[in-house]
Amino acid sequence: MSQAIDLKQTAALLSENNYFTIICHASPDGDTLGGAYALCGALQNFNKRAKVLCPEEPSKRFDYLKNGVEMQDFSEQREFVITIDVADSALLGNMEEKYKDSTDLCIDHHISNTGYAEKMLLDGDAGAACEVVFELIKELSRLNGADLMTADIASCLYTGISTDTGCFRFSNTTADSHRFTAELMDYGFDCTGLNYLLFDMKTPERIQLERRALESVEFFFGGRCAVITLTKEMLDAADDEDINSISALPRQIEGVEAGVTFKEKEKGVWKISIRTKNYIDAQHICAKFGGGGHQRAAGCRIKGSVKECKERLMKEIELYI
Amino acid sequence: MSQAIDLKQTAALLSENNYFTIICHASPDGDTLGGAYALCGALQNFNKRAKVLCPEEPSKRFDYLKNGVEMQDFSEQREFVITIDVADSALLGNMEEKYKDSTDLCIDHHISNTGYAEKMLLDGDAGAACEVVFELIKELSRLNGADLMTADIASCLYTGISTDTGCFRFSNTTADSHRFTAELMDYGFDCTGLNYLLFDMKTPERIQLERRALESVEFFFGGRCAVITLTKEMLDAADDEDINSISALPRQIEGVEAGVTFKEKEKGVWKISIRTKNYIDAQHICAKFGGGGHQRAAGCRIKGSVKECKERLMKEIELYI
Repeated sequence: MSQAIDLKQTAALLSENNYFTIICHASPDGDTLGGAYALCGALQNFNKRAKVLCPEEPSKRFDYLKNGVEMQDFSEQREFVITIDVADSALLGNMEEKYKDSTDLCIDHHISNTGYAEKMLLDGDAGAACEVVFELIKELSRLNGADLMTADIASCLYTGISTDTGCFRFSNTTADSHRFTAELMDYGFDCTGLNYLLFDMKTPERIQLERRALESVEFFFGGRCAVITLTKEMLDAADDEDINSISALPRQIEGVEAGVTFKEKEKGVWKISIRTKNYIDAQHICAKFGGGGHQRAAGCRIKGSVKECKERLMKEIELYI
Repeated sequence: MSQAIDLKQTAALLSENNYFTIICHASPDGDTLGGAYALCGALQNFNKRAKVLCPEEPSKRFDYLKNGVEMQDFSEQREFVITIDVADSALLGNMEEKYKDSTDLCIDHHISNTGYAEKMLLDGDAGAACEVVFELIKELSRLNGADLMTADIASCLYTGISTDTGCFRFSNTTADSHRFTAELMDYGFDCTGLNYLLFDMKTPERIQLERRALESVEFFFGGRCAVITLTKEMLDAADDEDINSISALPRQIEGVEAGVTFKEKEKGVWKISIRTKNYIDAQHICAKFGGGGHQRAAGCRIKGSVKECKERLMKEIELYI
């Protein structure tokens, strides 16, 4: 089991080491990437050598995170290994084998963290891992006697905080998420440009997927359940991030208590995600079909024609309505 | 011309008066309503009598702003009149006649304010009028010797800041917008619930309008111009706020420099809005058709069949592409 350490202890530990390998989780998002590149840049400014590794190629839209960070090379013999936002070593993907037992420090905000790393800097109340990284960089700056932050590093940390909180809309957004963001904006990066890139811009493929998802909306039980259906052909043409955010759509509709997304994995096999609002237990419904998840968001697979699958699922949902 | 006064002077002025009528602008949005109800509540906590007037009925989604505020009645003879977020007396709508020359104080964040009020508390750098109102309430709290803020007042001010900044995405969002939001969240209102109401929830009519808008998307000039077409029948079934936010859609598409929305006002009359990204002058294009606006967002009307109107407009846009 990991040893929990605080910000001061973590800063002291980093200052004693010189060669850092910082690792992101698979399916890398803005928080793991932003935190990794921010810490890498700050450590380099602290006269350390540091590099970022990622088990999967990040989306091109995150290319700007590398601004102002050098990819430094050094012998693996003496590396100090840090994972960022990696709650479970399984999330290291193809790097799990190599690093699951040799991670020196994990920086995270998931209370579910499995404790695979030797030491752990964890704040379960933080909206994003980048909030923890920001506090750590402030502590390192104190040790350094001069601020290690730059506008580029601020833009990395802003990326993590804003994406993990759904642009400050999700329930994990705290007063500190805003407080840190204010401090980051004071460093003067192009926040408006980033917001366009992260939250406004839609690819033509995304527009196409939205259109077809909206065309497929069906209502049940007087509008208390909404279902969208995405065929394999639609899914193949879209990227994962877009598919995920489309799954949020049915629950967004006024009056809907259960929002359901049917995704065709292969002919006759439907992956179903249920997101509920106030009183329907999505986990319980999905368990009936061998699936699982949380009370307000769960998933399962059902085999059969789409009509048949919907009928079976609606019978279960009806018990709650 | 208005006399500009600062926060301290404004607080002193309010403390000398006892009966306050606080007025919103027509087509009331979250900022004017949030600021008015917040100030009304704070003044009542300061042992003053205060009420809010609005030239038009606000949308029902803003009903919660009235929580914790009493609508107090008093003789008009001795009222002190304050307008919130009203840049021009014309925006007072059916109350313009009565109040345009008898507004004692205007609290605003539009540098374009016409100065119709006797005194003016204006901060052109503020992301929302509610930021100015919050600073004023802090000043009043100092005079009062105890905090006049409550969780309900904080939720009003959060409504103004978050809606006017597009949930912290637009270019008017400043570090202070986030700093104030952090302070407001410390008062402990249900921020997640509000975010759902303000930014996530979509009415079935909105879903319908989005679907039809997406179905209508056409691309020109290799994807650098995108056009959506909303017929009169589609517009009649939708509400103004939804129509406005749909107009932002074509410019959101990756690679699009000019996003155009065609709205059918009556048969053969099209109201056109153009929003541009980097180098196309929307104002200049709209001026060709007798319209106007800003460089990056402008509008005009063109008469004719939709095919004809698009051809005429595309010829002008082509000059820039």
